[in-house]
Amino acid sequence: MTVRLVGDAVFTVDTTDTVLAPGAVEFEAGTITWIGDPRRVEPAAGTEVRDLGGVLMPGLVNCHAHSPMTLVRSAGDGLPLDRWLSESVWPREAKLTEDDVYWGMALGAAEMLSYGVTTTCEQYRHPAPVTEALLDTGMRALYTVAIFDFADAGPDAGWEAMLAGACELFDTADGKEGRLGVGFGPHAAYTVPPEALRAVAAEAQRRGALLQIHLSESAAECRVVLERYGMSAPALLASQGVLDGRVLAAHAVWLDERDRDLLVQHDVAVAHCPGSNGKLGSGIAPLADLLRRGVRVGLGTDGPASNDDLHLWDEMRLAALLARATAGDPDVLSSRTALRLATRGGAEAMGLPVGVLEVGRPADVVRLRTDDPRFTPSLDDAELLGHLVWAAAGDLVTDVWVAGTPVVESGHCTTVDTERARAEVVQRARRLLDS
Amino acid sequence: MTVRLVGDAVFTVDTTDTVLAPGAVEFEAGTITWIGDPRRVEPAAGTEVRDLGGVLMPGLVNCHAHSPMTLVRSAGDGLPLDRWLSESVWPREAKLTEDDVYWGMALGAAEMLSYGVTTTCEQYRHPAPVTEALLDTGMRALYTVAIFDFADAGPDAGWEAMLAGACELFDTADGKEGRLGVGFGPHAAYTVPPEALRAVAAEAQRRGALLQIHLSESAAECRVVLERYGMSAPALLASQGVLDGRVLAAHAVWLDERDRDLLVQHDVAVAHCPGSNGKLGSGIAPLADLLRRGVRVGLGTDGPASNDDLHLWDEMRLAALLARATAGDPDVLSSRTALRLATRGGAEAMGLPVGVLEVGRPADVVRLRTDDPRFTPSLDDAELLGHLVWAAAGDLVTDVWVAGTPVVESGHCTTVDTERARAEVVQRARRLLDS
Repeated sequence: MTVRLVGDAVFTVDTTDTVLAPGAVEFEAGTITWIGDPRRVEPAAGTEVRDLGGVLMPGLVNCHAHSPMTLVRSAGDGLPLDRWLSESVWPREAKLTEDDVYWGMALGAAEMLSYGVTTTCEQYRHPAPVTEALLDTGMRALYTVAIFDFADAGPDAGWEAMLAGACELFDTADGKEGRLGVGFGPHAAYTVPPEALRAVAAEAQRRGALLQIHLSESAAECRVVLERYGMSAPALLASQGVLDGRVLAAHAVWLDERDRDLLVQHDVAVAHCPGSNGKLGSGIAPLADLLRRGVRVGLGTDGPASNDDLHLWDEMRLAALLARATAGDPDVLSSRTALRLATRGGAEAMGLPVGVLEVGRPADVVRLRTDDPRFTPSLDDAELLGHLVWAAAGDLVTDVWVAGTPVVESGHCTTVDTERARAEVVQRARRLLDS
Repeated sequence: MTVRLVGDAVFTVDTTDTVLAPGAVEFEAGTITWIGDPRRVEPAAGTEVRDLGGVLMPGLVNCHAHSPMTLVRSAGDGLPLDRWLSESVWPREAKLTEDDVYWGMALGAAEMLSYGVTTTCEQYRHPAPVTEALLDTGMRALYTVAIFDFADAGPDAGWEAMLAGACELFDTADGKEGRLGVGFGPHAAYTVPPEALRAVAAEAQRRGALLQIHLSESAAECRVVLERYGMSAPALLASQGVLDGRVLAAHAVWLDERDRDLLVQHDVAVAHCPGSNGKLGSGIAPLADLLRRGVRVGLGTDGPASNDDLHLWDEMRLAALLARATAGDPDVLSSRTALRLATRGGAEAMGLPVGVLEVGRPADVVRLRTDDPRFTPSLDDAELLGHLVWAAAGDLVTDVWVAGTPVVESGHCTTVDTERARAEVVQRARRLLDS
């Protein structure tokens, strides 16, 4: 059946950033079939018309998350990246069971969907419960299987075993339900040895799969890579044949001129994570310069231990705010670009056809109510865009569709029993903390 | 009658940042009379006990706002401070009627109260409607009457007339209903001539009134002051006898060593406005250094045209995030300090006894619900604080009291007809835009 959603305004985020006011989006079998002025074109007979008012827009795209870390939300606050991982996060994560990860991911998905985040690029270990939860919750996801080298902890924990697991998962689960993609997630240049990076890249390239890697996140990490390999992390990755247009580099904070040239030259995309980089004191990534150079950039929340939520609206605002503040120029990153980064930009960074409301694209649609002071007065499209980027937030999201399927209705996520997920996470998080 | 509020946790923000879990706050006739463990002390007979659960905390304090600018929310996005004022904001504000200002302020108050902001330091023209709206809406406010020098526009618009009006308002309205304070708001060193600054300071000092002034907000403004007077704005204000412990400097972004010394020497307080400074590309204020030097600092949203909301939670998070990101050190500004800036810090900057839950203080209390993913898992006080600072937001505020009077119940502001205020603002904003 065809469904027509009617809003006071539709932000398409298409090539010319078309705004229809009023506007309507029709979809059928998960795909957008028509967008236009509802006053001019009558719906076909049998169409379910939902006159919602408010704003319709593409679902937000989270380009870098470790969502099961809802289990360690706010852990280790005040520690720098290296100590935060080794002293607070990793000791708890070492105790994770598959069920823990399932509920952590389910709660993260419920949180994201309720904010209008319809797509997430996850990186975590424990493929089985992560993919199960992503499929159960109705999210669109690209799950990049985390690959470390914990060979000391036994043969199953070495990079070869993790890579084999990732390949197997890709071959069996990529494309499932049209919503789940599988990719490869070698953690970082300082945690995974060069021979592993080469091997992972070869397997990813053979499959045309996304390779997501943490890149030059903190100054401390950059020093380690430089001391160990005599070059920067981007240079190391380039030398190992890792960089190409299917690589998504998370963070990318500490990049010199040559590093930036390498990203451009190899068409590497970036997941910009300003909230996490700020909270952990990692720094401020050179977003405006990357955009000026034509790098594909999306936004990421990172995990909820370093953010501490999965509220991509904050990242949208922060991305624009930090770029303007550091440049001393309010024109260096427009509100239009900010909205694009949070939607289409992220999708393009991941190589997915979402983040845009356009005929033929998946019907991942978000509706916000606008009967709120933050959307007042909304005198024209420009001010409405201002309200959307600088004042709105996930709490105004009332309805969300992924591939045309409702996942949030009247502000409540319908695909996850959020109360149960919260209770499971509380109980399991307590166990992780006990020594 | 005595009211006892019981929460799962009470953040007192007292001298030792006491957290009670569970905790209770009792108040009578607007003043806090007891705080403690509700399991240990039975309420006196006749006490109204409200077992709310969730988090209780002091009302947030907004140290710098032009809230009637809800009427120009999101106007002029992308313009730098000087052009934003002269091309977009001031032309619309020139057409304001008293009723426009009343409704703009009322909507701003409704927005702030619903987020748990119980105190605001306003600076705007049009004293009558601003004070009327502040009294009607139940907010606690310190209204600093804006003083410009628009002598070209007629004798009523010169600084002498504006100062006379401010003095008269102080003498008749300061202290009204125990909630309204009146102060003096000479706009800035670059917009008000030195003789006016001297005269305003003398009147403020004679009355012990707060003097709020925009200080060193943008690099462009600093260049103007330096060219015109041969010294920085703080040095100019010091030379004119303006600086003392009753001065609240808004923004304070561009300060050299000597400027910072002057603020310390004269015990000047600062209203830190990171959201507005970022959106307008003004820069990043040296918050951590000011705190290290012992400067009293609170947080401000600035007006909703440069933010674009009055959501002080964003400023709390931004303050900590920017300080950490620019220092490259997550320990430079703790979550505890962030919470303090948003509450007690702001109150101390304004010289008000609020922002703390302590016996004898005004009962300005906020309750947040915690049955949300953002407050999960909350394993201990430290993580609960992390959730509060890094994940919570105004949409979780359910109940607010100002001086013991309920102003928000079940998430709805009960003192303002928000729908009416929105409709008034939309209609009036449209008129301001018409040429």
